[in-house]
Amino acid sequence: LRQGFPEVIFGESKTVGQMEQIIMALLGKGNNVLATRVDGEKGAALMHKFPVASYHRESRCLTIEQKPVEAKGRGKIVVISAGTSDMPVAGEAVITARIMGNEVETLFDVGVAGLHRLLARKELLFSASVIIVVAGMEGALPSVVGGLVDKPVIAVPTSVGYGASFGGVAALLGMLNSCAAGVTVVNIDNGFGAAYAASLINRESSSTI
Amino acid sequence: LRQGFPEVIFGESKTVGQMEQIIMALLGKGNNVLATRVDGEKGAALMHKFPVASYHRESRCLTIEQKPVEAKGRGKIVVISAGTSDMPVAGEAVITARIMGNEVETLFDVGVAGLHRLLARKELLFSASVIIVVAGMEGALPSVVGGLVDKPVIAVPTSVGYGASFGGVAALLGMLNSCAAGVTVVNIDNGFGAAYAASLINRESSSTI
Amino acid sequence: LRQGFPEVIFGESKTVGQMEQIIMALLGKGNNVLATRVDGEKGAALMHKFPVASYHRESRCLTIEQKPVEAKGRGKIVVISAGTSDMPVAGEAVITARIMGNEVETLFDVGVAGLHRLLARKELLFSASVIIVVAGMEGALPSVVGGLVDKPVIAVPTSVGYGASFGGVAALLGMLNSCAAGVTVVNIDNGFGAAYAASLINRESSSTI
Amino acid sequence: LRQGFPEVIFGESKTVGQMEQIIMALLGKGNNVLATRVDGEKGAALMHKFPVASYHRESRCLTIEQKPVEAKGRGKIVVISAGTSDMPVAGEAVITARIMGNEVETLFDVGVAGLHRLLARKELLFSASVIIVVAGMEGALPSVVGGLVDKPVIAVPTSVGYGASFGGVAALLGMLNSCAAGVTVVNIDNGFGAAYAASLINRESSSTI
Amino acid sequence: LRQGFPEVIFGESKTVGQMEQIIMALLGKGNNVLATRVDGEKGAALMHKFPVASYHRESRCLTIEQKPVEAKGRGKIVVISAGTSDMPVAGEAVITARIMGNEVETLFDVGVAGLHRLLARKELLFSASVIIVVAGMEGALPSVVGGLVDKPVIAVPTSVGYGASFGGVAALLGMLNSCAAGVTVVNIDNGFGAAYAASLINRESSSTI
Amino acid sequence: LRQGFPEVIFGESKTVGQMEQIIMALLGKGNNVLATRVDGEKGAALMHKFPVASYHRESRCLTIEQKPVEAKGRGKIVVISAGTSDMPVAGEAVITARIMGNEVETLFDVGVAGLHRLLARKELLFSASVIIVVAGMEGALPSVVGGLVDKPVIAVPTSVGYGASFGGVAALLGMLNSCAAGVTVVNIDNGFGAAYAASLINRESSSTI
Amino acid sequence: LRQGFPEVIFGESKTVGQMEQIIMALLGKGNNVLATRVDGEKGAALMHKFPVASYHRESRCLTIEQKPVEAKGRGKIVVISAGTSDMPVAGEAVITARIMGNEVETLFDVGVAGLHRLLARKELLFSASVIIVVAGMEGALPSVVGGLVDKPVIAVPTSVGYGASFGGVAALLGMLNSCAAGVTVVNIDNGFGAAYAASLINRESSSTI
Amino acid sequence: LRQGFPEVIFGESKTVGQMEQIIMALLGKGNNVLATRVDGEKGAALMHKFPVASYHRESRCLTIEQKPVEAKGRGKIVVISAGTSDMPVAGEAVITARIMGNEVETLFDVGVAGLHRLLARKELLFSASVIIVVAGMEGALPSVVGGLVDKPVIAVPTSVGYGASFGGVAALLGMLNSCAAGVTVVNIDNGFGAAYAASLINRESSSTI
Ligand SMILES: Nc1ncnc2c1ncn2[C@@H]1O[C@H](COP(=O)(O)O)[C@@H](O)[C@H]1O
Ligand SMILES: Nc1ncnc2c1ncn2[C@@H]1O[C@H](COP(=O)(O)O)[C@@H](O)[C@H]1O
Ligand SMILES: Nc1ncnc2c1ncn2[C@@H]1O[C@H](COP(=O)(O)O)[C@@H](O)[C@H]1O
Ligand SMILES: Nc1ncnc2c1ncn2[C@@H]1O[C@H](COP(=O)(O)O)[C@@H](O)[C@H]1O
Ligand SMILES: [Mg+2]
Ligand SMILES: [Mg+2]
Ligand SMILES: [Mg+2]
Ligand SMILES: [Mg+2]
Ligand SMILES: [Mg+2]
Ligand SMILES: [Mg+2]
Ligand SMILES: [Mg+2]
Ligand SMILES: [Mg+2]
Repeated sequence: LRQGFPEVIFGESKTVGQMEQIIMALLGKGNNVLATRVDGEKGAALMHKFPVASYHRESRCLTIEQKPVEAKGRGKIVVISAGTSDMPVAGEAVITARIMGNEVETLFDVGVAGLHRLLARKELLFSASVIIVVAGMEGALPSVVGGLVDKPVIAVPTSVGYGASFGGVAALLGMLNSCAAGVTVVNIDNGFGAAYAASLINRESSSTI
Repeated sequence: LRQGFPEVIFGESKTVGQMEQIIMALLGKGNNVLATRVDGEKGAALMHKFPVASYHRESRCLTIEQKPVEAKGRGKIVVISAGTSDMPVAGEAVITARIMGNEVETLFDVGVAGLHRLLARKELLFSASVIIVVAGMEGALPSVVGGLVDKPVIAVPTSVGYGASFGGVAALLGMLNSCAAGVTVVNIDNGFGAAYAASLINRESSSTI
Repeated sequence: LRQGFPEVIFGESKTVGQMEQIIMALLGKGNNVLATRVDGEKGAALMHKFPVASYHRESRCLTIEQKPVEAKGRGKIVVISAGTSDMPVAGEAVITARIMGNEVETLFDVGVAGLHRLLARKELLFSASVIIVVAGMEGALPSVVGGLVDKPVIAVPTSVGYGASFGGVAALLGMLNSCAAGVTVVNIDNGFGAAYAASLINRESSSTI
Repeated sequence: LRQGFPEVIFGESKTVGQMEQIIMALLGKGNNVLATRVDGEKGAALMHKFPVASYHRESRCLTIEQKPVEAKGRGKIVVISAGTSDMPVAGEAVITARIMGNEVETLFDVGVAGLHRLLARKELLFSASVIIVVAGMEGALPSVVGGLVDKPVIAVPTSVGYGASFGGVAALLGMLNSCAAGVTVVNIDNGFGAAYAASLINRESSSTI
Repeated sequence: LRQGFPEVIFGESKTVGQMEQIIMALLGKGNNVLATRVDGEKGAALMHKFPVASYHRESRCLTIEQKPVEAKGRGKIVVISAGTSDMPVAGEAVITARIMGNEVETLFDVGVAGLHRLLARKELLFSASVIIVVAGMEGALPSVVGGLVDKPVIAVPTSVGYGASFGGVAALLGMLNSCAAGVTVVNIDNGFGAAYAASLINRESSSTI
Repeated sequence: LRQGFPEVIFGESKTVGQMEQIIMALLGKGNNVLATRVDGEKGAALMHKFPVASYHRESRCLTIEQKPVEAKGRGKIVVISAGTSDMPVAGEAVITARIMGNEVETLFDVGVAGLHRLLARKELLFSASVIIVVAGMEGALPSVVGGLVDKPVIAVPTSVGYGASFGGVAALLGMLNSCAAGVTVVNIDNGFGAAYAASLINRESSSTI
Repeated sequence: LRQGFPEVIFGESKTVGQMEQIIMALLGKGNNVLATRVDGEKGAALMHKFPVASYHRESRCLTIEQKPVEAKGRGKIVVISAGTSDMPVAGEAVITARIMGNEVETLFDVGVAGLHRLLARKELLFSASVIIVVAGMEGALPSVVGGLVDKPVIAVPTSVGYGASFGGVAALLGMLNSCAAGVTVVNIDNGFGAAYAASLINRESSSTI
Repeated sequence: LRQGFPEVIFGESKTVGQMEQIIMALLGKGNNVLATRVDGEKGAALMHKFPVASYHRESRCLTIEQKPVEAKGRGKIVVISAGTSDMPVAGEAVITARIMGNEVETLFDVGVAGLHRLLARKELLFSASVIIVVAGMEGALPSVVGGLVDKPVIAVPTSVGYGASFGGVAALLGMLNSCAAGVTVVNIDNGFGAAYAASLINRESSSTI
């Protein structure tokens, strides 16, 4: 397989009919299914067609696990988010990482303005093999996390904010300019992409993904 | 006096001759003198004319204290900076705050990627009446400081950085989107403006500045 | 308390259910409540649950004062706005400042194109301990106010305008480049943040906020 | 004549040789000469070739008046500038307006942070037939002037400033969003263009320019 | 009167009730009424209250002429637009100019890609005392017009276009960089502002506006 | 050959030594040579090494024609430029088009503000098989040309201008939003790229380039 | 005919009534009809009026071929698109190119992340006389195609994407900076414009379009 | 150790004296030394002080290996660059990765416009445990590489280009919008940061870095 996971369906610009067809094909090949950016209405329609599916409303993801997810990682992926409004994006990352065979642990609502909550969970950070940090507004959290641990940090800016946040641009720039080494960045709101990259990092180098 | 300090000379677009004239006038009225954005060459020329002056090379400031600076603040201004490259801007703030009659303490090189250095000095933060935080790159430090203390924080973005720092824009946006309440922001590299505002904040409300 | 006021609820990305829960918790601890960015529909639902609450439609704020607000400031906060369309943001500032224990006075609709209305109220400006200036379009008002008084001025750009106002960016840039010293700036439409900072400035330096 | 004044030489991207040739041609036809954006070195070279010329160092303009400038306006053009650093641009406007046959009066260094200097000269504003307002930083002056008088105001943003002034963009946006009606805007630093337009406005409608 | 026309109501952010009140006040003082940015629904409601009013649907303007408009201009204002989609903005300019007492003539749908239509009407251009040029997309029309005539040209960029037109920014920049002297610019879609400035230009210099 | 012309050397980021080596190799294979973006100093050094070369100072191009250029086009490429400052970019286009085997004719200094110069040469436009239009500032010329003829127009924005021209961005946006169909655009100052594309268009479809 | 095809109706800002009128006029003159940017509702209304028309829902185009389309090209136009979401824009290009008399072939869903699909169809690329490449997100496909063939490539960025795609700006910039020579670019989502230019390129140079 | 490698000196804003001091300290602790962004002049001065150092002119790095670099990776890091102008940034990545104990292989000058060079080296890509892809202009290379392999790809945009490359922004946006999953991005020109992150990824999860 080229990309390590059968195919992830990007639901944003697809009709229910188009997704139905791709899902049928994937199921026919014996694969598990992950569709992202599936809004509530499309989610309901697909649940109706595939009662075996799970629809994750907040994260707008739909999954079907017709076979057990096979554990493939050499360690644990930790997903951290700064505020409650970042949860949908963090959720997309969690669901993606899990269905790709990774152990995932989460640490939510630990924004930079309340550092003690983060510092209280240092041991969790140290136990990770990769860390995904999801944050909007000023996007400062990845720098703080990256300064505490020697693990790869994947930063996900979110479009949370208003005014001069410019739909996530402030957070994106903050992350690209992180003063902590070891931080790399994905597109605004791209929880899926962060988890996909984290999953590749978490593989045994010898394994076929 | 309209603006609380006789007149601050913005040296960037002034010739040595023009500054000389303004300085003479200020001295003639018995005032102390502060000139900012005075580059090395202009500084040397002015030192030659006014041997009693002090030229602060790194901060590009020139000061003349012909009378003792009168203490006017009700508390202490603490100036914090993230990295060594932010020092010139932090220095401009320190010099401005001091000549305007404030007690000033500093905490330099305490970037977000090395939080322990900042956390080790919490008591200094708590002792401030206003805090100026100078930072470039992702501009995350004011949020961390603002989350630790209940004091007004004035954030100064610096033009330090490269690539997607866009000459200080990334830091500026980070600060405007700070998730810690109580943070206000001044223009990129405007150490003077931050100190001026901090000085107004630090006055007894009844005092004529 | 870390941030001087129990907790302010940012209502924009929260459901009525989430807000209800937080409000219950705050009330249970004997606190007063402030929620900002609460749209009309959510406001109505919350009023239904908490008949004792006040919903400020124009400013999209909800407040519950189960105990008298304790006066805490050493002076007065004056809130100025340029045009009628800036009123919602100015209102958010007023409500925030009041519930945090400050005496607040207002001066609305005194735009730069009609200076006489502002100049006629100079004595009000002089009586302030901090001034919040709310303005959209070209954002010139804080400079004019800052040039008249020696008090800290907190400038709030608003998203009012069209075309090249770019949702408040023109006003934001105008304020960051203010030619009057003593002006600091918060995010576009952030009336809450301005009032929070003003409130910290207005405290007795010795008081625990 | 197509554009009302023989031809104005934009010196920025021309060599001394190229300008020399154009000047010769203009003089040969009996015209007066105006060249803008002529830096010091080119200015010196041209003064050497044309000793009868005047080189205006600060404004980077070179003029040759081989015949008396003919008065053509129906009123007076007033040129106002906010700060000393805006003087070169204001100067370009003054020189252009004068050589095009207009009576010009000036009011310099009347920035928005020191309004009293402007208000003290209201009668000058009222006596104008067109007003050119030159300002950098936040570009607020045209709004104030436009609010005081019922005359066409042409606003010229300048590249004066640093950080978030973005080379004049902050001033430009401020002027485009002016809350005073009757204000129109030209390009950053375009003193020439403002004066050219003012000159067209100041003509008798029947006159051939 | 400060601004030469009693008061123009900017309807965008006003309720029907608010506008009703202002209109009543204006009518009570014997004035004519102009309200801009009045959408269809508000327009219908106001027509119901004031059957004597005219609602200009395409231009979103409402006018009431309870007394004849007094001719005040020394010449004619010509309003030119590039394409059919620019008509609402051009219409706002026409209505504003007319109710302010100017003779107005129009030349619509003469875009730069079909120059012959413009060139065929040169005599109309020459007969103007001021020209307003409304154009979206690349905003090239003001340069062409400005190159043909020696009259003040006020350029109005419109938000017409898609993709890299960025809501009128492409047209705005084109106009600010016009290679024809004598062109000044107003905000995107600001037909009102262009007409107001044109009206000031078109006055006898001695008249009280 | 993959790209139709042996290899064009982009001189901007290459040392004289690096270019010398590539030129030797090209000459060794019997090819003609074109190097673009060769500044004066590098040009002089290369002329010293290859006295047979021609250095085109204004266009910063170096060419060596060791064999006659073979005519390959099915028609003529016309290169038009708006102002004298656009000449270097236009020159790069001309040199590139010629050495690639095309007949080239030029029409320079025909800006939009002086349309008659362009209209006087319509027959030249009609005789072209492709037209390259080079313009800075507002970039309006390609629309005018595209409206006159039914030939492919390649628009080249130049970085000529100041202030809100933003180094060619205003012209680029103007061209992308052209209201004349048939216009395509290349990067700012990319005379080479325009000529390369024009050359591909001008080929007989059956010819191997 | 000025522009080679009778008239193309840009439906975005036109009412059904306006389009109906233009269509009637075109049909009356014996022309075929192409309308672009016709949304579903308008499309249905027009189909009702003109049952002979074809409405292409995905591409939002409406066509009426009352006479056979006359073949006019000297070769074939190949339209390539990167992803399924780019199909509407690619479709607009295909329909435009066909009704203008060109042979068109398509190659869809051959994004850069799955190169083998593109490489498998090299012979199709080689058979084209012009290639239109439609791509969103990073806009890399035109560079790859341009590197494989020696034919003119017209790149169409699409607004497909989210976050830092900025509505097609990322793709647009990628295409303007293409490292393959021979690529020219049109506005975001402008499938029509690409096909129009391709059609001009594909004409016999001697033909009247 | 906090960051896995003793300390990397960012030379850009440091004086020779400052760097000398830090290097002495590092050597005193027995560490190897890496300094980045050391320009030629500073490099020469430091070589004079530390004759044992290596100065890498093109990449502006200075290294001192006083003890053998200990191999620490579980696989190989492959560094790919698109063009010769990207070499300095790619070199910074190579030097950083090597001194941090990784096996590094390189593949330079394999731009997207000449895909065959990349496709010819597929086996090298497959042998990597992490791939760093350095590219300027349109930044398309990481998407192509990411589409070929199932390994983590770290994309480094470079400031190479002109015009609409905006100093690396076009490449940065292209990379953030990559259509290949598994790609993460660092700041423009940040070869060091990419290599640091790659090095963390390449560690055995159990190892102390
Ligand atoms: N939320 C997401 N954000 C970005 N890319 C995604 C997302 N979900 C899926 N994808 C990618 O989109 C590809 C499918 O695109 P498509 O063929 O348009 O459905 C998948 O292979 C993923 O690489
Ligand atoms: N470094 C600085 N940044 C911003 N404003 C400054 C600075 N230094 C001085 N100023 C302000 O500039 C004013 C003087 O401006 P000028 O009249 O141009 O010299 C002073 O009154 C200060 O308010
Ligand atoms: N369409 C318009 N665009 C810009 N400004 C306008 C417009 N219509 C009215 N105005 C201005 O808005 C002012 C009234 O603003 P307001 O007090 O908010 O109603 C008037 O005096 C005009 O100067
Ligand atoms: N999808 C499109 N994008 C850009 N321009 C178009 C499009 N469709 C038609 N046009 C152009 O718009 C012109 C008609 O514009 P209008 O007069 O506003 O209908 C046509 O002659 C075409 O050149
Ligand atoms: Mg780390
Ligand atoms: Mg705080
Ligand atoms: Mg003040
Ligand atoms: Mg006025
Ligand atoms: Mg003219
Ligand atoms: Mg044409
Ligand atoms: Mg090619
Ligand atoms: Mg991959």
